[in-house]
Amino acid sequence: MNKSELFNQIKKKNSFLCVGLDTDIKKIPSHLLADEDPIFSFNKAIVDATHDLCIAYKPNTAFYESNGAEGWKSLEKTINYIKDNYPELFVIADAKRGDIGNTSKMYARTFFEHLRADAVTVAPYMGEDSVTPFLGYDNKWVVLLALTSNKGSADFQRINDATTNKPLFEKVMTTAQQWGNDEQLMYVVGATQGEAFSKIRKIAPTHFLLVPGVGAQGGSLQEVCNYGMNSQCGLIVNSSRGIIYADQSENFAQAARESAKTLQNQMAIELEKWSK
Amino acid sequence: MNKSELFNQIKKKNSFLCVGLDTDIKKIPSHLLADEDPIFSFNKAIVDATHDLCIAYKPNTAFYESNGAEGWKSLEKTINYIKDNYPELFVIADAKRGDIGNTSKMYARTFFEHLRADAVTVAPYMGEDSVTPFLGYDNKWVVLLALTSNKGSADFQRINDATTNKPLFEKVMTTAQQWGNDEQLMYVVGATQGEAFSKIRKIAPTHFLLVPGVGAQGGSLQEVCNYGMNSQCGLIVNSSRGIIYADQSENFAQAARESAKTLQNQMAIELEKWSK
Repeated sequence: MNKSELFNQIKKKNSFLCVGLDTDIKKIPSHLLADEDPIFSFNKAIVDATHDLCIAYKPNTAFYESNGAEGWKSLEKTINYIKDNYPELFVIADAKRGDIGNTSKMYARTFFEHLRADAVTVAPYMGEDSVTPFLGYDNKWVVLLALTSNKGSADFQRINDATTNKPLFEKVMTTAQQWGNDEQLMYVVGATQGEAFSKIRKIAPTHFLLVPGVGAQGGSLQEVCNYGMNSQCGLIVNSSRGIIYADQSENFAQAARESAKTLQNQMAIELEKWSK
Repeated sequence: MNKSELFNQIKKKNSFLCVGLDTDIKKIPSHLLADEDPIFSFNKAIVDATHDLCIAYKPNTAFYESNGAEGWKSLEKTINYIKDNYPELFVIADAKRGDIGNTSKMYARTFFEHLRADAVTVAPYMGEDSVTPFLGYDNKWVVLLALTSNKGSADFQRINDATTNKPLFEKVMTTAQQWGNDEQLMYVVGATQGEAFSKIRKIAPTHFLLVPGVGAQGGSLQEVCNYGMNSQCGLIVNSSRGIIYADQSENFAQAARESAKTLQNQMAIELEKWSK
């Protein structure tokens, strides 16, 4: 999927919501546990209930891996289900991979060939040859970790580079622009740090930003939009637990829809403000 | 496995060799392709042929993931085979994971509970809460990326912190020592950069270092030993392609043994020098 298709979907749905599929076998409603593949049953119900309110799904690979080979089957079935039934939806494999060139190439093959993801999150620590193998696919995307929303983001991402006196996450953003353009590369930027967005927009005015942390991680949607929107919206805002675990009864999918609808309504307001 | 058990194995075998199981279905001998699980058949033969010459195996998860659910089964079978038949061997899942706390916890569960790995490689970019969930297991290890051996390691790992004027990889090493001790934490230090080892030993005198890059990535074993050994050896030196793909005929396992034996002989010489 290319950038203008993504933007068209945002305009059509009045939404820039990504639903995070952090699906934990220990947290899904108990009536699903009798199903052949409870994780897939849960995801299917969530996707059917929310696909018109969001533009993207983000399965978090950790939650699937923790169930071993069965978990990988659930992941594969989930992505296939989305792509077969709602092909306009953007699928981000939240895997945070990154390794030497020949290994990153294997990871790229996994997520872009074996699985049908549109994008994969990549960790920058190992530098250029750990990232570029993911950039060799048409209409596929790297979502590079820049500034994350967790407490530990202060440990290294915010240390200042002695040469420029700017933080590491800015160095990551500017350096990566030599590797790929804004049709291949997005950045993860944590939502709990709204004031950082205006700086970030100077560094990456045209890139899409994937913003985690609205909801369980405590970010404010309005602040993110004030600082982060660009002429093509430029934001994909993720919510995981706040949507998929809105209710743990048999009513979970309807509750997920209501929770997604609340966010989508707020997004419609922000898009309306921004269009003026 | 604890540190003294690891050191005892090094003394017993006169080796600090780790064999990297970067097993690629496209590179294994063609006669194995008729087997039910060719990846496992290959690994089993390699392990049977080399277990007395090495102290550790390091399956690289990317190579297994690229085969989807089947690949995860091969990985699981490989680790089980090693642990059931050669329980003294140390197994490092080379996964380079790292995510927010609740997600890293899932990854830790995968590698330490579902799979029977002794250690997992972890990427430090997201800081403390991305690493500590892996440290909550007795006799299990985090192998934290510090200075890797690839070209891209210069992009971020070597930028200087403005506060200390020391490179990021040193900051990673010192900061992580607040999270875990040398019975829980090792570091990845790339072998092609031997001169860095003397500095690194000042920062982490008692920690084990996992050294990739001897062989295909071009590091010198002697240089690594000169700079990197400590009173308990303190090194685990990995070779992957140089051993497992030493020969691609039906004779591959014997050739892998010979290649491993060559490295082990060199290691025995270094251990002999060091013991004096």
